[in-house]
Amino acid sequence: MKTLEDYVTCIPDFPEPGIMFRDVTSIIQDADGLTLAIDSLRSMLKGIDYDVIVGPESRGFIFGMPVAYAEKKPFIPVRKKGKLPRETISAKYDLEYGSAEIEMHRDAIKPGQKVVVIDDLIATGGTIKAITGMIEQLGGEVVKICFIMELAGLNGRSVLEGYPVESAIVYEGK
Amino acid sequence: MKTLEDYVTCIPDFPEPGIMFRDVTSIIQDADGLTLAIDSLRSMLKGIDYDVIVGPESRGFIFGMPVAYAEKKPFIPVRKKGKLPRETISAKYDLEYGSAEIEMHRDAIKPGQKVVVIDDLIATGGTIKAITGMIEQLGGEVVKICFIMELAGLNGRSVLEGYPVESAIVYEGK
Repeated sequence: MKTLEDYVTCIPDFPEPGIMFRDVTSIIQDADGLTLAIDSLRSMLKGIDYDVIVGPESRGFIFGMPVAYAEKKPFIPVRKKGKLPRETISAKYDLEYGSAEIEMHRDAIKPGQKVVVIDDLIATGGTIKAITGMIEQLGGEVVKICFIMELAGLNGRSVLEGYPVESAIVYEGK
Repeated sequence: MKTLEDYVTCIPDFPEPGIMFRDVTSIIQDADGLTLAIDSLRSMLKGIDYDVIVGPESRGFIFGMPVAYAEKKPFIPVRKKGKLPRETISAKYDLEYGSAEIEMHRDAIKPGQKVVVIDDLIATGGTIKAITGMIEQLGGEVVKICFIMELAGLNGRSVLEGYPVESAIVYEGK
């Protein structure tokens, strides 16, 4: 019986020399891998009381939406600046070079709502930290953060200290 | 009982004056709207024999992945150039100003496979036409193309002539 990790293709030197890229698209390119991935996210949410699922563009859409559909929850997309049509709030975060700005609809989360965040990968944790800030600005409470893969060597968990974080696969390196 | 159309928020003058923007994110911001949307896509595929689902970045991910999970099919993402880590094929298509290039993994579709394409919206049909070209280049057969919304005034169906196209909501305008 294959595990979720067996469906991950590792690509050396992508996107630049020295980086071992763990490809999540190879998981979902196989129907059994896709089922394993979504089922593992759903199992992280067993017994958790929550109202909405938030996921960032664009791989957070891939993993968050099937969970939302199966669990009958709303899905709130976080997008790059300028792509959402209604009134938004935004957050900036630092990248290796420069910074990025992301947005979510202002009416997407109501005060007091319990929120789950789903993304494919936690590396440095910068994007997800910015998302938790927006959720809390709208009065929501982050009750769980779920990932398919975690690069433990980048220590993203320290940035998300205080939040319940769970990853289906933990790689020790970067 | 609300219909899928009732969950669509219409935003005048976005992204530019004179355009009435139909917002699909308002559908999925409601758990019942999200269920209706995915169920309507699944009902379009009843009785159809197919092997994989293809969806373009990033709203095709939103609507394609839940269908793939529920129907136990693989999901193949189409992305903007440079984002997919393994060997790709690519296609260019014209935009109102300039052109865009999209890619999919070369090993994502095997010759003879039957392929369903899912996206949120058909406007001019240019993106989806480029995707059908890549699928056929890899030896796949497009057996159905499903959308949540169709802007019939832009006549995207004429670009996709010969393919079975179905949309959950058809707007007469642009």
